[in-house]
Amino acid sequence: MLYACGGTRVLIAASIDEGVAGWLRGSGKGWVTAEYAMHPRANPQRQDRDGRKGRIDGRTQEIQRLIGRSLRAAVNLEKLGERTITVDCDVLDADGGTRTASITGGFVALALALDRLRSKGVIGAGVLRGPVAAISAGIVGPSALLDLAYVEDSKADVDLNVVAMGDGGIVEVQGTAEGAPVPRDRWTALVDLAMSSMPSLFASQSEALARAGTSLDKLVR
Amino acid sequence: MLYACGGTRVLIAASIDEGVAGWLRGSGKGWVTAEYAMHPRANPQRQDRDGRKGRIDGRTQEIQRLIGRSLRAAVNLEKLGERTITVDCDVLDADGGTRTASITGGFVALALALDRLRSKGVIGAGVLRGPVAAISAGIVGPSALLDLAYVEDSKADVDLNVVAMGDGGIVEVQGTAEGAPVPRDRWTALVDLAMSSMPSLFASQSEALARAGTSLDKLVR
Amino acid sequence: MLYACGGTRVLIAASIDEGVAGWLRGSGKGWVTAEYAMHPRANPQRQDRDGRKGRIDGRTQEIQRLIGRSLRAAVNLEKLGERTITVDCDVLDADGGTRTASITGGFVALALALDRLRSKGVIGAGVLRGPVAAISAGIVGPSALLDLAYVEDSKADVDLNVVAMGDGGIVEVQGTAEGAPVPRDRWTALVDLAMSSMPSLFASQSEALARAGTSLDKLVR
Amino acid sequence: MLYACGGTRVLIAASIDEGVAGWLRGSGKGWVTAEYAMHPRANPQRQDRDGRKGRIDGRTQEIQRLIGRSLRAAVNLEKLGERTITVDCDVLDADGGTRTASITGGFVALALALDRLRSKGVIGAGVLRGPVAAISAGIVGPSALLDLAYVEDSKADVDLNVVAMGDGGIVEVQGTAEGAPVPRDRWTALVDLAMSSMPSLFASQSEALARAGTSLDKLVR
Amino acid sequence: MLYACGGTRVLIAASIDEGVAGWLRGSGKGWVTAEYAMHPRANPQRQDRDGRKGRIDGRTQEIQRLIGRSLRAAVNLEKLGERTITVDCDVLDADGGTRTASITGGFVALALALDRLRSKGVIGAGVLRGPVAAISAGIVGPSALLDLAYVEDSKADVDLNVVAMGDGGIVEVQGTAEGAPVPRDRWTALVDLAMSSMPSLFASQSEALARAGTSLDKLVR
Amino acid sequence: MLYACGGTRVLIAASIDEGVAGWLRGSGKGWVTAEYAMHPRANPQRQDRDGRKGRIDGRTQEIQRLIGRSLRAAVNLEKLGERTITVDCDVLDADGGTRTASITGGFVALALALDRLRSKGVIGAGVLRGPVAAISAGIVGPSALLDLAYVEDSKADVDLNVVAMGDGGIVEVQGTAEGAPVPRDRWTALVDLAMSSMPSLFASQSEALARAGTSLDKLVR
Repeated sequence: MLYACGGTRVLIAASIDEGVAGWLRGSGKGWVTAEYAMHPRANPQRQDRDGRKGRIDGRTQEIQRLIGRSLRAAVNLEKLGERTITVDCDVLDADGGTRTASITGGFVALALALDRLRSKGVIGAGVLRGPVAAISAGIVGPSALLDLAYVEDSKADVDLNVVAMGDGGIVEVQGTAEGAPVPRDRWTALVDLAMSSMPSLFASQSEALARAGTSLDKLVR
Repeated sequence: MLYACGGTRVLIAASIDEGVAGWLRGSGKGWVTAEYAMHPRANPQRQDRDGRKGRIDGRTQEIQRLIGRSLRAAVNLEKLGERTITVDCDVLDADGGTRTASITGGFVALALALDRLRSKGVIGAGVLRGPVAAISAGIVGPSALLDLAYVEDSKADVDLNVVAMGDGGIVEVQGTAEGAPVPRDRWTALVDLAMSSMPSLFASQSEALARAGTSLDKLVR
Repeated sequence: MLYACGGTRVLIAASIDEGVAGWLRGSGKGWVTAEYAMHPRANPQRQDRDGRKGRIDGRTQEIQRLIGRSLRAAVNLEKLGERTITVDCDVLDADGGTRTASITGGFVALALALDRLRSKGVIGAGVLRGPVAAISAGIVGPSALLDLAYVEDSKADVDLNVVAMGDGGIVEVQGTAEGAPVPRDRWTALVDLAMSSMPSLFASQSEALARAGTSLDKLVR
Repeated sequence: MLYACGGTRVLIAASIDEGVAGWLRGSGKGWVTAEYAMHPRANPQRQDRDGRKGRIDGRTQEIQRLIGRSLRAAVNLEKLGERTITVDCDVLDADGGTRTASITGGFVALALALDRLRSKGVIGAGVLRGPVAAISAGIVGPSALLDLAYVEDSKADVDLNVVAMGDGGIVEVQGTAEGAPVPRDRWTALVDLAMSSMPSLFASQSEALARAGTSLDKLVR
Repeated sequence: MLYACGGTRVLIAASIDEGVAGWLRGSGKGWVTAEYAMHPRANPQRQDRDGRKGRIDGRTQEIQRLIGRSLRAAVNLEKLGERTITVDCDVLDADGGTRTASITGGFVALALALDRLRSKGVIGAGVLRGPVAAISAGIVGPSALLDLAYVEDSKADVDLNVVAMGDGGIVEVQGTAEGAPVPRDRWTALVDLAMSSMPSLFASQSEALARAGTSLDKLVR
Repeated sequence: MLYACGGTRVLIAASIDEGVAGWLRGSGKGWVTAEYAMHPRANPQRQDRDGRKGRIDGRTQEIQRLIGRSLRAAVNLEKLGERTITVDCDVLDADGGTRTASITGGFVALALALDRLRSKGVIGAGVLRGPVAAISAGIVGPSALLDLAYVEDSKADVDLNVVAMGDGGIVEVQGTAEGAPVPRDRWTALVDLAMSSMPSLFASQSEALARAGTSLDKLVR
C-alpha cells in the first residue's frame, strides 16, 4: 500500500505472524510492532541505508517505537490473540511528516490485514478500538502550519506531532521547540490546530477502506 | 554530582572537550550531548548493562537524545565556541522520572562546568540563555500526579514529560497515553500541573549553584 | 525507477556523488557500486530486513557484488572521472530473477543518471562502452526455461545467470546445479538459450531510454 | 591435511558433529558447510584477519558458500543422516586458485572423515555420490591457462572456476570477464580447457585416499 | 556498596539470580561472575564508555575475568547450588589498584548477598571457604610500594597484583615488568610485601561485615 | 615458521610494516603487537573460529596482549624506529602451553624479521635487548611439572606462566590456583622450577637462529 501525504510517500505493508515473542507467550494477547526505513533516495541527496553499517540510527528507533505504540493504541490486543502484526513503513519520498504519515497510513494497512483475518473467521469484531491517525504541525516564523513540507520543516521553530483516535482522545503528543522556547499558549494553539485536522484524516482512512471493499464498522463493533 | 529526586538518584558529570565533531568544525559553534546509562542494579531486579551485548537499546538512545536536546536549549552554542560538553547521567536508583531528573540535575552540572570555564576567562557571560528543568506527570486512576514513583509509573494511564525554561517557555512536551486515549482537556490540565512545579525546580537549581559558590547570573548575563 | 520483469518488481535508483573512495583518489577513475535489498514483504511470507540484526547476509553481499561488477563492465571508468555511482536495487516483489532484473534495469537507471551529467556538460560521450543486460535461465525437469518464476526457481535443477553486453561479449556466467550435476552439453544449450534472449532485453532498455527522451548513442559515442 | 596446488597451500580439516541446525532437525538429512579463511601472511603483504574487526568480508562469504555448495553436491545428505560436516579451509599460501584448491582438497578431507564414520559402522556405503573437484582457468593476453598463479591472475582478462563431478557432470560454472567482455566461443574453449584437466584432479584425489589406506569405492557404493 | 581504597572508589553490587548458564545446568553447582566498568569520568580526562561503540575493550575483559576467578576461589560452588551471582564493579574514581579494590570490596558485597540468602534459609553454612582479598604492589625507582596511586602507577617499573585467601593461600599472582626486566629476588620481595598487607585487608572486610550486622563465621562454618 | 613444544604446534609469522599507529606517530619509536588465533581443529573437538560471530573472546584478547607485551620487553623500540611488527600466532595443535609457546617461538620469528631489516641496513645493532622466552608450569596432585600437556593442564591445581629474558630478569609472572589456594612456598618452588628451564629455551632459540644462518649477537650488540 502506498500512502501519500503532501510530497511524502510511504510504502506500507502489514504482515501477520501467528505467535508472539517469548514475554507474551501464554498471555492470550497479541502485539503490533513497526519497522521504519528511509529509502536511500527518499531525500534529494542519497543517504546510507540504516543498519547496513552496524547499528540502527537512534532517530529510526525512536520513530518506529512511536509508530508501534500509536498503532497498538487502536488495537484490542486480547481480541487479536497471540499474533504479531508487523507494519513496515518504507519512506520512498520524504517531504516532511514521515512518521505521522506512517501512522495514518499504517492504520489503514493494519485494518485491511485484520479484515482479511476477520473474513476468514480467525478473529471477531472488536479487535479494533477505533481509528488512529497522526498529524504534524509547526510554527514557522509567525505562522502555525499543518504537515510541514521538508523545506518548511527545516526552518520550523516548533515541531509537534499529535496522535489521536477517532473519538478525540489523544494518544501521544510530542513537541520540540527547535529554536527559542515557545510560550504555553502558542503550544495550546498548535495542539488545537493539529486536532482540527483529525476529522479529515479519519475520513480519508474510511475512504481508503471503502475503496478496498470494507469498513471499520466490521472491525470495531 | 549526585542528583536525587524522590527515590531516583542519578550520578551526573559534565565534561568539556576542546573541539567539535566534523560537521560543526569551522562553524564557531559548540555542542552539548548527553549519555544516559542505567546501572545494572538501579532497579530491584538486576538488568544487563546496555551496550555490553552489542547495540544500545532504543529506549536509551531516545532518552539521551531528549536530554541532549533539552540541555542545548539552555545554551547559546555560538558563545560556547567550538567545545563539546558531554553530560553523563548514570542512574544509580530508578524510582520513576529518570529522564527528567537527568535534565534538571544535568543543567546544574552543565552550569558548574561552564562556570569553571568562565572563571578562567575562556568564555564570557551569555553562554547560558537561562535555566532548563524537566518534570514528569501522570494520570493514575482519577488523580493527576507529579513525578510518579516507579510503582505509580507502571500503573499510569498517561506519562507526560515537560521540559521548560526559566522564563516559562516550553522546550519539549512528550506525552503518551499508555492505556485508553485521554481527552484533550485532561492533557491540558496535566501540562498545567507540570508547569506549576517548575518554579520549585528552578529554585532548587539556584540553591545547588549557590552551595557551589556561584550563581546563574554570571553565566546568563 | 520501477523495473518489472515477470512478477519481479525492483525499485531502482542511481545516485552520483562527486569523489571516490580513498584507494581510487588521484587515479582519475570513477566507480560504480550497487546496493541490493529485499523488501520484507517481497515474498509472500514476511522476512526480516537484512542488516537490521547486525551483519548483512552473505547472499545479499554476493548479489550486490555481482550487480556492481556487471554495471562496471558497461562503464568507461576513466571517462566517468572521480565520481561514484551507487545503484540502489530494492526488490518490492520477488518472483525469481531478482539479480538479473537488477542488472538489466540498473543499466537503464545508470544510463539516465549519466545522461543528466552529459547534458550538463560534466562528462562527454564514450562514458558507456555499450549496454549490459542479464537473464536467468534454468532447467526444470526436461525443459530449459528463461527467467524462472519463483515457483519454478525453487524446483529448478540448474540456475544460470548470464550477463552480456550489446556486442555479444559475455561479462559473467554463473551457473549452479542445485540437484544432480548436469552434463556439459546441457550447460552449453542453456547458455545459448540465455544468449538468445539478450536482443529483446537490449531493445527494452533502448525503449525505456527513448521514453525518457534520450538514447544510448549520446553516451556510447 | 595440507593441500597444495601450484604455489597455493591450504590447510584443510573436516569435522563431524552429531546434529543439524534447527531448519533440518527431524528431516533425517545432514549438511555440509565450509569455512574459508586467509592467513594474514598468505600473501606477501600482511592483511588483517577477516572477522577480527566486526563483519566477515563479502568475498570470504561468497567463497565459503561456493565451497560448501560444491561439496554438498558430492554427498547424499539423506544417507549422511542428521550430522553436520564442517570443512575448514585455511589458506596458508595464496598463489591463485585458493577456492578451487579448497574444493578439490576439501573433498579428500570430507571423504576421509566419512570413511572414519563408515569404518565405525555409523554410516553405510552410498553416502558419497562420487568425487567432486574444481579448477580455475583464465585468459591472459592471447593464452588460455589453467590454474593461474597470483601474478597471472591479477593480469587475467577472464577468471573462470569450474566445479565438476567424476562422471563429467558440471556442478558450478563461475566466470567473470575482468576487462573487456569475451566472445561466446572463447568462453566455450575455456570451459573445455578446464574440463580437460578434471581427470588428473580426480586421480590425485584417489591417490591421496589410497595413501590414507582407503578408497572412494567404499563410500560411493 | 561503595568501596574506597586510597583515592580509588568503586561502586559494588552483588546480585543473585536463581539458575545458571546452560553448561552448568543440572550440575548442582553455582557460578560467580563479575562485570567491571570504568565511569567515563573516573579519570580526570573523560573517556568513552566501554561497549558503547561495539565491543568491550580487551583490558576490561581481562580485569573482569580476574575478579570473577578470584571471587570464585572463595566460594564453595556446590553449596551455592544452581545460582548465579553477578558482582558489578563500577569504578567512580580511579587512582590506581582498581582491580584489586574490586576484588577486596567485591568479597564483602558477595558475603552480604550470601548472608541474606543464608538468613532466609536458602543456603547453609560452608558456602564460603574463607575471605579473599587482593592488593597491588609496585617498584617505583628504588622503592617497593603497596597500592600505587595513579601517578605512581604510571611510573612503576613493575606492577604486581596478588590475590590471597584468609589462610595465606595464594589464589593468583600477576606481575608485569613495565620497563626493564626485574631480577628474581626483587620479585620475591615484592610478593612478600604484598602478602604482609593481607591481614589488614581481611580485618577491614570483617569490620565492614560487622557494621552490616553479620560475620563471616556464619557463612564459612 | 612452525614452532613445536610438546604436542603443541604454533604457526608463527612476523610481519613488518613501515609506520605506526597514530598515538606513536612522530615519537621515533616502533611497536610490536601479536595476534593469537586458535585453529578450529586445534583441539580434538572442533570449536568456532574466534571473531566470526562478532566479537573476539576475552581469553584470546588476554593472551595476545600478553604475547605482545612479552615480545616488546625484548625490543628496543627507539632503535626499531617508526615500524610496526605484527607477530601472528596460529595454534594448529593445542596440547597445553599455547601462549608460552607463542612467546618463545614468536621471539625467533621476530629476530629473523629484524635480521632481514638489519641485513638491508635499515636498522642497526642493539634493536634487541636480548632473548625472551616463556614456560608454563603447574602443580598436578603432588607434583610440580613443566609445560603441562592438555590432559595434565585440565587437572592442574595451579597454572603458572613465567616470561623471562636471557639475563635472568623476569618480565611477567602469571599464576592462578585453579582449585584450592596454594601456600606461598609452593608458589616460590614453582617459579624456581620454571626459571630452571629457561636456559634450554634460550639454547633452542639460538639453534633455530643458527639454522637460519644468523645469530642474536648481530641484533643485540
